[in-house]
Amino acid sequence: MIVIMKPGATRAEVEKVVKRIKKEGLDVNIDTGSEHVVIGVKGDTRTIQDVAFYSYDGVEKAVRISNTYKLSSREFHPGDTVVDVDGVKIGDGHFVTMAGPCSIEGLDQIRECARIAKAGGAEILRGGAFKPRTSPYAFQGLEEEGLKYIRQAADELGMKVITEVMDEGHIDMVAEYSDILQIGARNMQNYKLLSAVGKTGKPIGLKRGIAGTIDEWLNAAEYIAVEDKSPVIFIERGIRTYETATRNTFDLSAVPLIKKLSHFPIIVDPSHGTGIWDLVPPMARAGVAAGADGMIVEIHPDPANAWSDGPQSLNEKTYMKMMQEVHIMEKAMKEIRSLEA
Amino acid sequence: MIVIMKPGATRAEVEKVVKRIKKEGLDVNIDTGSEHVVIGVKGDTRTIQDVAFYSYDGVEKAVRISNTYKLSSREFHPGDTVVDVDGVKIGDGHFVTMAGPCSIEGLDQIRECARIAKAGGAEILRGGAFKPRTSPYAFQGLEEEGLKYIRQAADELGMKVITEVMDEGHIDMVAEYSDILQIGARNMQNYKLLSAVGKTGKPIGLKRGIAGTIDEWLNAAEYIAVEDKSPVIFIERGIRTYETATRNTFDLSAVPLIKKLSHFPIIVDPSHGTGIWDLVPPMARAGVAAGADGMIVEIHPDPANAWSDGPQSLNEKTYMKMMQEVHIMEKAMKEIRSLEA
Amino acid sequence: MIVIMKPGATRAEVEKVVKRIKKEGLDVNIDTGSEHVVIGVKGDTRTIQDVAFYSYDGVEKAVRISNTYKLSSREFHPGDTVVDVDGVKIGDGHFVTMAGPCSIEGLDQIRECARIAKAGGAEILRGGAFKPRTSPYAFQGLEEEGLKYIRQAADELGMKVITEVMDEGHIDMVAEYSDILQIGARNMQNYKLLSAVGKTGKPIGLKRGIAGTIDEWLNAAEYIAVEDKSPVIFIERGIRTYETATRNTFDLSAVPLIKKLSHFPIIVDPSHGTGIWDLVPPMARAGVAAGADGMIVEIHPDPANAWSDGPQSLNEKTYMKMMQEVHIMEKAMKEIRSLEA
Amino acid sequence: MIVIMKPGATRAEVEKVVKRIKKEGLDVNIDTGSEHVVIGVKGDTRTIQDVAFYSYDGVEKAVRISNTYKLSSREFHPGDTVVDVDGVKIGDGHFVTMAGPCSIEGLDQIRECARIAKAGGAEILRGGAFKPRTSPYAFQGLEEEGLKYIRQAADELGMKVITEVMDEGHIDMVAEYSDILQIGARNMQNYKLLSAVGKTGKPIGLKRGIAGTIDEWLNAAEYIAVEDKSPVIFIERGIRTYETATRNTFDLSAVPLIKKLSHFPIIVDPSHGTGIWDLVPPMARAGVAAGADGMIVEIHPDPANAWSDGPQSLNEKTYMKMMQEVHIMEKAMKEIRSLEA
Repeated sequence: MIVIMKPGATRAEVEKVVKRIKKEGLDVNIDTGSEHVVIGVKGDTRTIQDVAFYSYDGVEKAVRISNTYKLSSREFHPGDTVVDVDGVKIGDGHFVTMAGPCSIEGLDQIRECARIAKAGGAEILRGGAFKPRTSPYAFQGLEEEGLKYIRQAADELGMKVITEVMDEGHIDMVAEYSDILQIGARNMQNYKLLSAVGKTGKPIGLKRGIAGTIDEWLNAAEYIAVEDKSPVIFIERGIRTYETATRNTFDLSAVPLIKKLSHFPIIVDPSHGTGIWDLVPPMARAGVAAGADGMIVEIHPDPANAWSDGPQSLNEKTYMKMMQEVHIMEKAMKEIRSLEA
Repeated sequence: MIVIMKPGATRAEVEKVVKRIKKEGLDVNIDTGSEHVVIGVKGDTRTIQDVAFYSYDGVEKAVRISNTYKLSSREFHPGDTVVDVDGVKIGDGHFVTMAGPCSIEGLDQIRECARIAKAGGAEILRGGAFKPRTSPYAFQGLEEEGLKYIRQAADELGMKVITEVMDEGHIDMVAEYSDILQIGARNMQNYKLLSAVGKTGKPIGLKRGIAGTIDEWLNAAEYIAVEDKSPVIFIERGIRTYETATRNTFDLSAVPLIKKLSHFPIIVDPSHGTGIWDLVPPMARAGVAAGADGMIVEIHPDPANAWSDGPQSLNEKTYMKMMQEVHIMEKAMKEIRSLEA
Repeated sequence: MIVIMKPGATRAEVEKVVKRIKKEGLDVNIDTGSEHVVIGVKGDTRTIQDVAFYSYDGVEKAVRISNTYKLSSREFHPGDTVVDVDGVKIGDGHFVTMAGPCSIEGLDQIRECARIAKAGGAEILRGGAFKPRTSPYAFQGLEEEGLKYIRQAADELGMKVITEVMDEGHIDMVAEYSDILQIGARNMQNYKLLSAVGKTGKPIGLKRGIAGTIDEWLNAAEYIAVEDKSPVIFIERGIRTYETATRNTFDLSAVPLIKKLSHFPIIVDPSHGTGIWDLVPPMARAGVAAGADGMIVEIHPDPANAWSDGPQSLNEKTYMKMMQEVHIMEKAMKEIRSLEA
Repeated sequence: MIVIMKPGATRAEVEKVVKRIKKEGLDVNIDTGSEHVVIGVKGDTRTIQDVAFYSYDGVEKAVRISNTYKLSSREFHPGDTVVDVDGVKIGDGHFVTMAGPCSIEGLDQIRECARIAKAGGAEILRGGAFKPRTSPYAFQGLEEEGLKYIRQAADELGMKVITEVMDEGHIDMVAEYSDILQIGARNMQNYKLLSAVGKTGKPIGLKRGIAGTIDEWLNAAEYIAVEDKSPVIFIERGIRTYETATRNTFDLSAVPLIKKLSHFPIIVDPSHGTGIWDLVPPMARAGVAAGADGMIVEIHPDPANAWSDGPQSLNEKTYMKMMQEVHIMEKAMKEIRSLEA
């Protein structure tokens, strides 16, 4: 933490700030530069992150230097964390695909999705049983019935399951059927929910908030990490910007950035990232090339009749073709990684 | 709903779309304009809002015409809804002030805040007992203890209470102490929570999401309105944009826009809207002038030592001066409203 | 300027940064805090604002403390600058209205606009002769013919003129007819144009860029100010955000913020700020209340037949009513300002 | 164009709109759906794109269906346009690299940059002689002297040149030395400049505006295309969003989207797209994988001493390694493209 005083700040004003810092047992370094006095704080500044230095007379601004997250940071844990989803490894260098429909619509539909997903090489089946919808009049999901269907469909083909949990009250139920618990974009800062899923021991797929910053995302992961039970899988799904030509703006730079700042794996969601099915394959390829540990993608046997998110869903043919491309990209990335060795 | 076909769409492609629409019992009007065939849907299109027309061959895009919310809309309820908070009316033409600290820090602090708030003309006391914080290491609120303090402080001065509820499990507890239940910006799309507070019968202060659109906000209100118990008070608190000179970008145009689209009252939060205490008074004045039904504002006896949000809190002196200005603005608005009559 | 080293930075890495700074004749203060070494730079850091400290090994980031603008800053010029437009004062405490059509469409139209504008109390006539249009097929303005018309219409009623100059090659021509030269939002960072208009001695109406930050806006003003001839009038006209319910997001907080950071006056443009004519009057009132020195507003005798920007234009009746409201607001602001004295 | 009437619109209101449309020689289709009357316009709606339907009584909104650009659209020109830069083809399936410093600092520096660029496989040398800078006190470029240096450096190695032109007055000068004229992000909507460079016959590298939409970008290209002389090369360089962890948000989805909507080639700029040198290589790889026709990237023999943009510049070692990776990606893309055949 650095506190920057206004050009004309008085000695008494500086003293008042220093006194406040020392009250927390921290030491200071005072830099009387020509234009601004700058007060550097020594020690663990997390204890003063809430202090309103801006309210002190003579203060221009306070600049945070250290991050507020720790357990999620690479500084704290320099090696990569590989997440083991009951045998499927995420973050070990191979590219994991999670595929399935937006909504679970019935047993037949999810079985058909699983067959397609697996045929293309997906190891994990996705599908929503609880759907957060903008309008109360839209379809809200099959709930526990849907969970049963997806578990059965996955088990028949030896796949794992990822599905969203929206509510603290449903965690036990969802955890009974799903291998990974997904936190949706709207809940990235639902801190009660983060703490609660963090206690389950299941891997948590943490979607970036609709307008979540990288820093907030890492802090959200910290809420899970402090429970010291569940590993985190970051999921980049695009952010809200002024551009409306795509559903979201797919921020692929988040992949190398998160890898630099955190030890947890990151996967990408080109379906929500673009919202337009014919942009999904090129952005899936780009995700591999950016260094993501995997992807989550929406498929449907008949997108035109999907109950939700049809416009961004691939059908069997387009999905199979994309997976062929993704496998070529994976090979290329393996070659690139071997250069580094 | 209007479905716009691509320039070269075939008759068969058009037919397939039409068939899908008729399957829902709706009728169509087909406009064979020179460049694009346009299919207009007649009837209540809410039943087809999830149909993925974009996935049909030959479709360029589908455009929604009707809103997905209804009970919150002014179309449905042309007159203004006046919310009665145990005698304090919101939306009746007078400007209601809710003031208090960001966090309840103790009985003495909240009492002192209440004294100041009341002296300036506030009728409702604000203060957080549950605090959603970006970092898990930041102060999270005094919880039930805080609720007791704020209730007591308000009762001693004949004030009403507004405080945030973050979690379904705490609704009963918060409702015991508070007159208005506030839904924070991070929870604007926590649909389970919206439905649950909508059942309490208490007025709900619904903050706009950090990157919430006007349309999403109205749909969030609809989740409360469908429960048919609790009236909604919209709270504009600024949105996230590229501009970092203020904490948020305070979108005051939302005031006349919400008044045009909905019958529920709207108040403004210049403290979060700007994040900088010396911008609060001019933006509070602007809020009155824009036609808001009230405001919610952060004050603290000693902002420099506030446990949270100090930089945007007013002290006694700056708050009292602002309230003087707000009263002058109110008078001017009364004069303006009388012109219309 | 402060350079923050990474936690594990070596002494040699610190030395390299220090050496680079001293090369510019500046001195340093080295703060060996517990987690990060922080190097504070003493002296006029404008000379090192381009140094790529981030490229040095061991550097985490560099934080700018001082602003890069100077002549536009209130620090440099504590008193308000009042701009004198041939007798009409902007920034002297009274609220100046500039009104007129988006495009000058002919002599009759601009005369009719002038008559209405003046009747409502506007002192300055606006109207575009050169129109920057998204599409090359849209109407681009009457050019010099339009300039003649607006000058004539203004002169007949004793009004002043503001109109946009888009191109260095037209400055002399526009300056011949107009009292204020307007720089449009798309040209806020057209630095050649800024320098060139800054040499004319005419007041410059500087619109905020479509996605311009407050800091960039002040730096754009600096390009004009360094020419030491023309005063600047800031024009807040809304910024581009994710919200599409309004044409732009009208950032009224810019008014008190610019007043805090700069000595030049600031006016508001509620027409572009909202893009919807029925939101213009409440936002005009809010602009007065926020402390703006004036406004620029689009009117048209027959908005439905305007050649451009009709949806945000007021007609005679709605404009006259708005001006009545604005005058009431002005009186209220006068009362508020007298409190301060 | 579709005009949507309000639910209660009268027959007379509908008639007035219809009359206005027919005045332009266009025909209508009137759809009296159950909630809203919808008026579809038949014919070339470009002639009514400026009509302010929103100003008509009873109108809710007008929705544009056709694009306002034509010559730049793939509808108009279904095949890919391959741009021939004096023998170097852009858009023919191979990935073209343009590399060089942000600013040309002297003959030795640009020669050294050219040597490195060429060694890595770049065919085109970049370097700025005119620099648009936020602050008037920052380095503004070597101007014609710089142009001479970059031409000489490129010629010595048989490379082509791309450099920015900021001002109409400099077009002839820049065109004398450069093979491609670059329009910077700040000038994407400087329409006079677009028209003027469109007359040169040189290929135009058109950067996306700092907050430019895809639609505005295509319309900007249209300003060049209507001159019917110069082909366009789109350059995605990131957009401004709320995220500050990267300099811009690199919108890679623009690559497949532009390829879908336009026939002109598109390249990517991972240097400005991220602003952080160690994110450049993964995003360059992602650019290849997304299907870009090439990239433009900043390199410097000594980034720590670059006069501008050092933080995002690669040095010789990091550039050479990136190019090795890019070549592997190119091979993979060739394999993927052969699948399609």
